[in-house]
Amino acid sequence: MKNVNIGIIGCGTVGVNVAKILEKHSVIIKNRVGCGINIKWVCDKDLSKLKQLNLPKEKITSDINKVILDPSVDILVELIGGNDISKKIIIEAMDRGKHIVTANKAVLSKYWDEIFSLALRKKLLVYFEAAVGAGIPVIQSLNEGLAANKIQSIVGILNGTTNFILSKMTDNNMGFSEALKLAQKSGFAEANPLLDLNGSDAAQKLSILASIAFGNHLPSEKIHREGISDISPIDIKYAKNEFGYVLKLLASVKNENGKISATVCPTLIDVEHPLAAVENEYNAIYIDGDSCGDIMLYGKGAGGPAAASAVASDIIYLATNIFYGTAGKFPFILYDKKIKLNIRPVEDIVSKYYLRFSTADKPGVLSKISGILGKNNVSISACFQEERHKKQAVPVLILTHQTKEGNVRKAIKIIDDLPVVKSKTVMFRIME
Amino acid sequence: MKNVNIGIIGCGTVGVNVAKILEKHSVIIKNRVGCGINIKWVCDKDLSKLKQLNLPKEKITSDINKVILDPSVDILVELIGGNDISKKIIIEAMDRGKHIVTANKAVLSKYWDEIFSLALRKKLLVYFEAAVGAGIPVIQSLNEGLAANKIQSIVGILNGTTNFILSKMTDNNMGFSEALKLAQKSGFAEANPLLDLNGSDAAQKLSILASIAFGNHLPSEKIHREGISDISPIDIKYAKNEFGYVLKLLASVKNENGKISATVCPTLIDVEHPLAAVENEYNAIYIDGDSCGDIMLYGKGAGGPAAASAVASDIIYLATNIFYGTAGKFPFILYDKKIKLNIRPVEDIVSKYYLRFSTADKPGVLSKISGILGKNNVSISACFQEERHKKQAVPVLILTHQTKEGNVRKAIKIIDDLPVVKSKTVMFRIME
Repeated sequence: MKNVNIGIIGCGTVGVNVAKILEKHSVIIKNRVGCGINIKWVCDKDLSKLKQLNLPKEKITSDINKVILDPSVDILVELIGGNDISKKIIIEAMDRGKHIVTANKAVLSKYWDEIFSLALRKKLLVYFEAAVGAGIPVIQSLNEGLAANKIQSIVGILNGTTNFILSKMTDNNMGFSEALKLAQKSGFAEANPLLDLNGSDAAQKLSILASIAFGNHLPSEKIHREGISDISPIDIKYAKNEFGYVLKLLASVKNENGKISATVCPTLIDVEHPLAAVENEYNAIYIDGDSCGDIMLYGKGAGGPAAASAVASDIIYLATNIFYGTAGKFPFILYDKKIKLNIRPVEDIVSKYYLRFSTADKPGVLSKISGILGKNNVSISACFQEERHKKQAVPVLILTHQTKEGNVRKAIKIIDDLPVVKSKTVMFRIME
Repeated sequence: MKNVNIGIIGCGTVGVNVAKILEKHSVIIKNRVGCGINIKWVCDKDLSKLKQLNLPKEKITSDINKVILDPSVDILVELIGGNDISKKIIIEAMDRGKHIVTANKAVLSKYWDEIFSLALRKKLLVYFEAAVGAGIPVIQSLNEGLAANKIQSIVGILNGTTNFILSKMTDNNMGFSEALKLAQKSGFAEANPLLDLNGSDAAQKLSILASIAFGNHLPSEKIHREGISDISPIDIKYAKNEFGYVLKLLASVKNENGKISATVCPTLIDVEHPLAAVENEYNAIYIDGDSCGDIMLYGKGAGGPAAASAVASDIIYLATNIFYGTAGKFPFILYDKKIKLNIRPVEDIVSKYYLRFSTADKPGVLSKISGILGKNNVSISACFQEERHKKQAVPVLILTHQTKEGNVRKAIKIIDDLPVVKSKTVMFRIME
């Protein structure tokens, strides 16, 4: 009986854990797949990483081409991350008839069309469960388990680093820098965490989920994003204690009558909402479908074993299809370039808002601010101002009714120019 | 282009919603499947139910055999529920080469071996996403998305009726009967809710999840079960206010070194645990795999549209495979009769416990009770007794450290025979 051969390119913590899973559970896997899964190659430019795997020398290489050009490799497992080299590897491997498993959100969110049109043409499968939410089976669920639904919205906590930091700021009263340092020490933030902190990582993942849900590529550049680096513990405290909200970095897409809003930004959610309980490095994806109603998938969004769970499950599913001759008979991902994804400008997005104004403690300030809000069609639903304040600037907190973001921004621009306003007004969306 | 033909047997609220979804989303579905899905038959003994569907007369029947014997039917959709008639329908349809979609937990949990061995022999697919957690894609996730994992435990809130009742008892201070009446009025409990209230429904669903996770049939009769009908609001209040626990009807299986514990019983969980936030008619399944870590899937566990979402998604997936000629090339459900599922007797299950003793307000009572607990290897972790009590019986609350359930039961038996003990001691497990 022939085995299915895989070649793993990129052997960091995910790659090592994939190899371990395939070895540890080889008997059960063989029973399921119908044949064994043979690791033909593990490739990394840093060969020292591969030593812990105890693989024979002839399976180890630092030369990507050894894997891509080997005709016996059935599945290429791309785990190096990043954009352009990965794309080259994936395309060249498909050109040579190999199916793909990847954990790479960057390459998929950028080259969705190119990769999946080639897959369709070549009748190959590209599986990528680990690209969003690590071990959470969200890709399969959205693509197949909820296939009967028109997806109305997806709201996700998709980035473990930022969720860890915001959790520590909320629960342990840490400042941003302190929480970031702890995240780095705990292995939940990289040395250079920029792409996590500014929302880019979450936007790439949201791009993938939205592209599946809406049937065409929604590139991550079209997703409005705001990061968490400027968030002050004061707002987290006020929002929670005065209004019962928790601040999370939410990645969300919503389809309203064909108009799509797509954003990654710090957002307040009711403490009772299931997403509010998603803490630390955990991720969750909250999906609203027209039949299923609201569904939430929750789990570890980061870490070698969790991501390897998804990669290895993809490999098992692909290998089964290869063994039984069904791989690629029909496409995994459907998309239709003719579907127009009409992205709503951020100014047109309608939401409730939390506003914190820093004002001088003078009579008439609240009246002035609320007047400007009113003139810009921003109507107030709640207001809070502490009786006294030792420092010069007094925080005035206002929650608004639903209004267009453009209205709020216009009002803030005018308000921030008032002489009584001491610093930039803070604004967060409030999730319905 | 040939359509895939389906025959729906049983047209209650789920069946009607399935037909509606297939009509409403027919264009998208056709694009995905490769051909149309044609409802060839809808069958119900009560023809009046079918009128709302606006189907032509020749598609409507009250005769099951018209559907089973029609050679053009590719997929038989069994939605009548119950045991023996459903089994007959499923087996006879498979004998005639039809693939199956069913939402029937009762028939699967009872006839797992028979149904899936026939499916294997006949190279047919039996899909059943709606049988557990309605629209939550838990079957597919467990069976495929987490395939690389050894499943260590599954803990579920699998019954919407009981969760609704317990939520109302917890959040609205209702008694059991009042909460049950509200559940019935709100459409979340049947006129005869016995199988929900006594844990049987949850045990059937747990049987299905465990059979997938452990690779062989775990019949629901082997699952120890306790219902919620005797639960008093007092315990819900004490557990929450004094110890920070919420009472839920948990269905759980755990595999510890090949010994499996499988129970459905009211269980206390920490208010911070994600399962504690699952309210009302919602269901959730908390899965612990050796690589993925803890994963939770959450959503509406009942209701026509939610269940229909799962049934229709199954139909779409099956139809795609039929169209492309890949259906049944390999089995959906693997099981191995040789795998021994070693079920642990309930007395051997180790847990922490909540105990409420009703005692006379006399000196020495606590010492007597704690003495008996100690002699039976039950060690106390917390104790609470209200200072005074107007009535004769004083509630004494004790939380224990981990111990075998047999020890606790033995101790309670002795304690309940003491003359100072006024009524049966209440015992709940506490989830770790």
